[in-house]
Amino acid sequence: MINDKLPKIWYGGDYNPEQWDEAFWSEDVRMFKLAGINVATLNVFSWALNQPDENTYNFEWLDEQMDRLYRNGIYICLATSTGAHPAWMAKRHPDVLRVDFYGRKRAFGGRHNSCPNSPAYRKYSSRMADKLAERYKDHPGLLIWHVSNEYGGYCYCESCAESFRRWLQSRYGSLDKLNKAWNTRFWGHTFYDWDEIVPPNDLSEEREGNRTYFQGISLDYRRFQSASLLECYKLEHDQIKKHTPTIPVTTNLMGTYPELDYFAWAKEMDVVSWDNYPRLNTPVSYTAMVHDLMRGLKSGQPFILMEQTPSQQNWQPYNSLKRPGVMRLWSYQAVARGADTVMFFQLRRSIGACEKYHGAVIEHVGHEHTRVFRECAELGIELEQLSDKLLDSRVESKVAIMFDWENRWAVELSSGPTVSLNYVDEVHKYYDALYQLNIQADMICVEEELSKYDVVIAPVLYMIKPGFAEKMEAFVRGGGTFITTFFSGIVNEHDLVTLGGYPGKLRSLLGIWAEEIDALYPDQKNEIVLTQPWGSLHGTYACQILCDLIHSEGAEIKAVYGSDFYKGMPAITVNRFGSGEAWYVATSPDSAFLAGFMSNICESKGIKPLLPYQKGVEVSKRIKEDISYYFVLNHNQEPTEVGLGNEQFINELSGEVVENTVIVPANGVSILSNKKS
Amino acid sequence: MINDKLPKIWYGGDYNPEQWDEAFWSEDVRMFKLAGINVATLNVFSWALNQPDENTYNFEWLDEQMDRLYRNGIYICLATSTGAHPAWMAKRHPDVLRVDFYGRKRAFGGRHNSCPNSPAYRKYSSRMADKLAERYKDHPGLLIWHVSNEYGGYCYCESCAESFRRWLQSRYGSLDKLNKAWNTRFWGHTFYDWDEIVPPNDLSEEREGNRTYFQGISLDYRRFQSASLLECYKLEHDQIKKHTPTIPVTTNLMGTYPELDYFAWAKEMDVVSWDNYPRLNTPVSYTAMVHDLMRGLKSGQPFILMEQTPSQQNWQPYNSLKRPGVMRLWSYQAVARGADTVMFFQLRRSIGACEKYHGAVIEHVGHEHTRVFRECAELGIELEQLSDKLLDSRVESKVAIMFDWENRWAVELSSGPTVSLNYVDEVHKYYDALYQLNIQADMICVEEELSKYDVVIAPVLYMIKPGFAEKMEAFVRGGGTFITTFFSGIVNEHDLVTLGGYPGKLRSLLGIWAEEIDALYPDQKNEIVLTQPWGSLHGTYACQILCDLIHSEGAEIKAVYGSDFYKGMPAITVNRFGSGEAWYVATSPDSAFLAGFMSNICESKGIKPLLPYQKGVEVSKRIKEDISYYFVLNHNQEPTEVGLGNEQFINELSGEVVENTVIVPANGVSILSNKKS
Amino acid sequence: MINDKLPKIWYGGDYNPEQWDEAFWSEDVRMFKLAGINVATLNVFSWALNQPDENTYNFEWLDEQMDRLYRNGIYICLATSTGAHPAWMAKRHPDVLRVDFYGRKRAFGGRHNSCPNSPAYRKYSSRMADKLAERYKDHPGLLIWHVSNEYGGYCYCESCAESFRRWLQSRYGSLDKLNKAWNTRFWGHTFYDWDEIVPPNDLSEEREGNRTYFQGISLDYRRFQSASLLECYKLEHDQIKKHTPTIPVTTNLMGTYPELDYFAWAKEMDVVSWDNYPRLNTPVSYTAMVHDLMRGLKSGQPFILMEQTPSQQNWQPYNSLKRPGVMRLWSYQAVARGADTVMFFQLRRSIGACEKYHGAVIEHVGHEHTRVFRECAELGIELEQLSDKLLDSRVESKVAIMFDWENRWAVELSSGPTVSLNYVDEVHKYYDALYQLNIQADMICVEEELSKYDVVIAPVLYMIKPGFAEKMEAFVRGGGTFITTFFSGIVNEHDLVTLGGYPGKLRSLLGIWAEEIDALYPDQKNEIVLTQPWGSLHGTYACQILCDLIHSEGAEIKAVYGSDFYKGMPAITVNRFGSGEAWYVATSPDSAFLAGFMSNICESKGIKPLLPYQKGVEVSKRIKEDISYYFVLNHNQEPTEVGLGNEQFINELSGEVVENTVIVPANGVSILSNKKS
Repeated sequence: MINDKLPKIWYGGDYNPEQWDEAFWSEDVRMFKLAGINVATLNVFSWALNQPDENTYNFEWLDEQMDRLYRNGIYICLATSTGAHPAWMAKRHPDVLRVDFYGRKRAFGGRHNSCPNSPAYRKYSSRMADKLAERYKDHPGLLIWHVSNEYGGYCYCESCAESFRRWLQSRYGSLDKLNKAWNTRFWGHTFYDWDEIVPPNDLSEEREGNRTYFQGISLDYRRFQSASLLECYKLEHDQIKKHTPTIPVTTNLMGTYPELDYFAWAKEMDVVSWDNYPRLNTPVSYTAMVHDLMRGLKSGQPFILMEQTPSQQNWQPYNSLKRPGVMRLWSYQAVARGADTVMFFQLRRSIGACEKYHGAVIEHVGHEHTRVFRECAELGIELEQLSDKLLDSRVESKVAIMFDWENRWAVELSSGPTVSLNYVDEVHKYYDALYQLNIQADMICVEEELSKYDVVIAPVLYMIKPGFAEKMEAFVRGGGTFITTFFSGIVNEHDLVTLGGYPGKLRSLLGIWAEEIDALYPDQKNEIVLTQPWGSLHGTYACQILCDLIHSEGAEIKAVYGSDFYKGMPAITVNRFGSGEAWYVATSPDSAFLAGFMSNICESKGIKPLLPYQKGVEVSKRIKEDISYYFVLNHNQEPTEVGLGNEQFINELSGEVVENTVIVPANGVSILSNKKS
Repeated sequence: MINDKLPKIWYGGDYNPEQWDEAFWSEDVRMFKLAGINVATLNVFSWALNQPDENTYNFEWLDEQMDRLYRNGIYICLATSTGAHPAWMAKRHPDVLRVDFYGRKRAFGGRHNSCPNSPAYRKYSSRMADKLAERYKDHPGLLIWHVSNEYGGYCYCESCAESFRRWLQSRYGSLDKLNKAWNTRFWGHTFYDWDEIVPPNDLSEEREGNRTYFQGISLDYRRFQSASLLECYKLEHDQIKKHTPTIPVTTNLMGTYPELDYFAWAKEMDVVSWDNYPRLNTPVSYTAMVHDLMRGLKSGQPFILMEQTPSQQNWQPYNSLKRPGVMRLWSYQAVARGADTVMFFQLRRSIGACEKYHGAVIEHVGHEHTRVFRECAELGIELEQLSDKLLDSRVESKVAIMFDWENRWAVELSSGPTVSLNYVDEVHKYYDALYQLNIQADMICVEEELSKYDVVIAPVLYMIKPGFAEKMEAFVRGGGTFITTFFSGIVNEHDLVTLGGYPGKLRSLLGIWAEEIDALYPDQKNEIVLTQPWGSLHGTYACQILCDLIHSEGAEIKAVYGSDFYKGMPAITVNRFGSGEAWYVATSPDSAFLAGFMSNICESKGIKPLLPYQKGVEVSKRIKEDISYYFVLNHNQEPTEVGLGNEQFINELSGEVVENTVIVPANGVSILSNKKS
Repeated sequence: MINDKLPKIWYGGDYNPEQWDEAFWSEDVRMFKLAGINVATLNVFSWALNQPDENTYNFEWLDEQMDRLYRNGIYICLATSTGAHPAWMAKRHPDVLRVDFYGRKRAFGGRHNSCPNSPAYRKYSSRMADKLAERYKDHPGLLIWHVSNEYGGYCYCESCAESFRRWLQSRYGSLDKLNKAWNTRFWGHTFYDWDEIVPPNDLSEEREGNRTYFQGISLDYRRFQSASLLECYKLEHDQIKKHTPTIPVTTNLMGTYPELDYFAWAKEMDVVSWDNYPRLNTPVSYTAMVHDLMRGLKSGQPFILMEQTPSQQNWQPYNSLKRPGVMRLWSYQAVARGADTVMFFQLRRSIGACEKYHGAVIEHVGHEHTRVFRECAELGIELEQLSDKLLDSRVESKVAIMFDWENRWAVELSSGPTVSLNYVDEVHKYYDALYQLNIQADMICVEEELSKYDVVIAPVLYMIKPGFAEKMEAFVRGGGTFITTFFSGIVNEHDLVTLGGYPGKLRSLLGIWAEEIDALYPDQKNEIVLTQPWGSLHGTYACQILCDLIHSEGAEIKAVYGSDFYKGMPAITVNRFGSGEAWYVATSPDSAFLAGFMSNICESKGIKPLLPYQKGVEVSKRIKEDISYYFVLNHNQEPTEVGLGNEQFINELSGEVVENTVIVPANGVSILSNKKS
């Protein structure tokens, strides 16, 4: 349990009473109670209010808010307020201001605006955390710490340049090693002094859109900036832990946000929390994947849904309303995949500045007689009923998909072979194939312990870190099934090519050699032709983006290319290795192929769907002690009947016994439990 | 009359003899006479020539030109030459150079390039106006003053920052009030010292495309920059008025140019003038609307068409020639809508730099035997015939459409609900519906006195300024018809939301509450379904962009939505209020709906078309004393017959009597007069 | 012969042994020999390695490489290593860093990164050339010098500003003349002091995409930057020539690269070399044209194909593999059009940084058992067979097409009449028409001596330099056929319009007057209607982009426009002038018209196709002494039969006698020789 002070699904969201007159506060509390809200996130953007100058601190307003909320049964997720520095700090300590990718020193404005290597920012942000933790360490309403807000963005200032050089010295020890790791003899980039190294941005090695002349420095700068921001988090975290060692500490992540290596971050967080803002046209399986990824950050521990909108957003081009029922549906999607909380941005809509058209539990009209509030209140009551049943339940998967931020950076920084390759999309293609089969998958890091998995999929695993190939060989040798794809095994952790033939260190495991890589134009396709029918797969499927021209070196050829000069060369291979199998998918197949492919693989390993597939219906399962909870989420716009096989269930929301089938309303949810089977 | 020295329609344009050797001057005058040209705008870009350094002035060339032109019967529109600062000034007084939106100090180049808060620019530009006015105050050829040229563009330099802070101090009095007006507790932006405030640009609060994090500061910066440029105008204006209190002063505006609040500017101008550069594919009703807007800037006073091209432009992507007759047709369009002048950029084409492919009365070939010159000369002769008949005639409308620059800024700066909303386009939809009905409309500011109007339309009036709601309530109570739309009544003059339910202060007048606002994707539509047939309207019409989800609070529901979860909710409502009616159009309808809607409204108020509608034919009417002048403009590519009802007219260009119908040639014009009916 | 040390077709490419451990070197040589490689380009990017600080030089590694290669029969194309400055130089001598178009001082990174007017860059780059030439002047393997690499890019720094002012002083002598040449009275830009002039970039007169407010300064800045970079080349060139006056010196050009006036450059080069990187979808006739242009730079002398990829590139969006046979086919295309070498970038693929996915003779796998290596080796053996047969052979053409970089700049900088006009594309349309007829054309500069040509085509020759009109009049008077097009003859070398009617100085030669120029929207077309059938031309053809509205002043009208208000006005005219003809094509015709047009013209001059046309088959001819070598290149994906007329040939690659027809395989090549006919 995240914090046993509040042993149920937490329900609430961001709350900014400091933007409002006292008159609103009692009305807020009245409505929170109507809605079943039990947690409020305070103090997210109050740095300027808390600290009007270098040495003055003002927390009275916060004392009052925390006391009032707690008196009314509402616990506090206490933010540290360092997500945006005060204007006076920007004026008096310009080192807090970032230099942007274009080399421009920024002025005061926006948020996510502090240089992570700024001495002033580090000093004042950690001191703020210290002061807050000291002051509220014994507050009975204090439920969890929320450090800063949505960390992100890189800086390229002189402080960062200097810290980068120190970071490099510590990483490489000598310029000789750095020159080698970055292959600086290319284009005569040899460094003779650490001071010659400048941050890679639009003034030096990079161009917009992750284009770089030197992958080595660009990759390291991403590592360095991710680590620099994490250091800022840790400085606050450590101050907090001094005073409240047992209160959990988190910061809100942003799903597949590209700039931070969240697996590294999660190590420093007591619990993962994240902000979920799908667009109207985001595939639901994509959102599901991101929930699973957030759960995977800490190897399956429940996470916090820290933010979602009750209705619409403001920063999308077209901010559609969430249709009736959709907010509830998506809230349960989070819970289904490991969230033990449902929280909103925001509890009351602000009246000015850029987020005033972002939905809130309490809209501008200010009363409870709105569609949005009614839906929030209905959900609040439902979650109250569920009490602590689901808390700490786990998702169990036999299939794992690897996701790696450093690999992603390297793929995106690659100059050639194609601009069409999107790492996250390729990962999602495999995830989606499993999702459509109602087969649960974990999203894991490449370091994850694999013994509980039967199948491990690593799409486009371009970068092979030390020890990884050996680990996968052991996994397969022991009976595991490993699947990887084109453009895998190419480079080491420095983005230096492993010589001797692609896929490098995975070559003997996969039993193939990739001689060349052809890039297809967006309007070009090739075909995957099965060498013989295999399960539901037969005939021809489309493929695109990249085609590796591979030769089998022992692997069985399951399918070949259907056209172009490499017609007949292998497209899908499997290599028996020890007791297991290693698969190579040499191109990016269409979804029909992947559905059949994943189905065949899972069937061969005895991995069964949670429930029979029904179009538009998502199924996930959480397990607690000996009870399984099946979440049946109907994303269709009409009621849908879902088969349940031969088992009997209890509908946790209605209390009824359910057998054979369940009919789930449009945008509706059923939570069905039975003894763990 | 703008200036009774020249009591006829002024005809001429920009003339730059200083770019040419003396040999060309007499040829110019010969050709001007052939073309009936009686006004030349001199000195627009001659600052560097007039003033080679800080203390030297050289006007001999100008003396000579003015004398020569006047001797030949050509009057002078005398510009002050401050539209582009000299290179020496940029070098020696870098404060005249702007800092751009991206934070870059600009170098010498282009035009519209002076910082409006630059001490050097203000000093030298006002001194130039002083010197010119003193020198030419008694010149008999001096017809009108033309201050600077096409004011526009914003600056973000340190001078502007300082002036902005002073402007804010004067506007708000205290930082407390400013912090409140900008809602700075959002994202912890509280200011404790005026010096902490920096201009909102790409380095601070804004991003390209009118995106901002803080609407408050961005809105105020637009007000401030518009006012700063206006101050520059006023400094010159005041110097001129010292010497020539009775000669009119103007500066050339640019129609719907977004950056300046032209209603505020017009207050300081004796007469409005503007530059009309439609593209080949600009709807003619759009140009008509802009003429009406320019007329509306000074509540219906005649205006000056200061620039148009005789043939083609140079700065469009594809600079099509104006087809034969089109220059004349568009010239009369201006006159039809209130212009008492027809002027060109330019009289002679320059031989070098970026405008050398911009059309001119005298083309590069240099003689009069060109299509363009012939058309210019024919028009000149025609205008000569019209003499002073039309001068000072007025356009009379019973319908007014409100246009407000501050509202426009606020709409464009809004983050959400959609990027598809374009204020000017929404205004134009209503204008176009009236235009297609041959019903004349005035374009007015929100402060305009309304007693002469029966119908007032305020599309997307998002910002409600103090007193406005009360004013409109009085207008409707007294029998007026008020029409407004979705996304109206939302905020006050600081862009702070009016709490308690949209449309805020207009809620009781309109008798509705807008609970939510749905944003549609570009490929999405909803439908407007009439609750019962109404005039020519019945059945279903398409709507798009935004859909307010409204509840009637007393208003009659004329139409409802046809689909989505808010199917059946009101889409069009009318509220009886006192003796009048207040309409709410909750979405953006297609043109078929708006045609029927405006027709029904006008019919109910007894407002009749000027003439029966004929596709492609524009009709406008000007009235002088007891004579009505009907301008019948055929934008079709074939001759078109237009019905005239039962009245008899005189064709002012042919002298013939016209009855029943008139046939207007392709791209042709008829001016028909009769006693005011 | 480029250098008679190696009297055969040179075969090799860029080689960077300094990026590799010694272990690779012997393997490299073994594989070079397998592939028939006889030239390696060394030292391209080794500045940082060669010179670790201001006063230390280190060439031992290069001694070793040169010796080793030479011992193994491989000659050296020795680069001067100045294509990218060292990091230490950027740090200690920041004047080497450019200021970019946006006004930003760049930091260390990338390549092509040195300011051409930087004192430090000039000092150290010329000293490097001096040191290298002195050291290797007697090395027996030294075949040719390769100065820097792919010169390009402009700088806008203060050093450049100062040099620009000096360059202007020398060009114009006085500010008066400069002000006149730039027409600075437009927009009041008069300069009173040289120091007031600043480089035209995004901070001053220009905007991205070649947009400028002042064509005069922008045109001169292009001239100046091209000349500045050329001066850098010359500084190195002169140092080299001190030591090795007989070894040829080149630098690798880039085809139609826009920024440098290659005709001026070629004057300073002993032999032209260039880098050929077509995309998969580049028309083969475009590549052919560029080869011909490179040959034309030095009036027909053989050139060097310095770089091409053996397989794929890395910097295109989609880096397709060269299909089997295509590398050979395109290599022979270069030879067919005048190359006496076939060279690659690169001999061995690098393992890190941005070009690691650029194809190479030795791929990452490191052995010779790859498709790419096999194709390289097969070609190497073939070229070996050809020995010195083709060396110094010439291409002979009766048709010339003019190409002029200064004209191109002026066309691209023009504001109006259309953004659709692309100079190179217009030139290519005429080239392609000839190419499809198997008629050989030379690409020449406007100064070229014309006596050997029967037909000279100058598409869109907007800028007429002094003496050009007189030269063309003499050419036509003497019997030549001159063809030019719309938007020609408009301006002089300062981009100042020639007054008195377009096409200015060409008007009497062409016998027409262009009164107006209409710009068509991209979706608009007009028609060319033949006044009577002419050869294969009859009826109607489409035209687009621009339409000159012309009047004949003596020229015969061959075709008129088919629509719009200028329907019936001349579209194609021919003027008899002396013994010759001058043609005006008043618009941009479709390819069907141009095919017939060029066919008619050539037929009338007795110019015959090299071989009968066969779709997809390219034909070119080189002549040496009394032997003609016909290159028959089959770009089709199937074998194609090509008629040979009545002549007998020897197939140079097979030794067989060929008569009547030859069947060329898909992507195949035949080289057929016979006595010069």
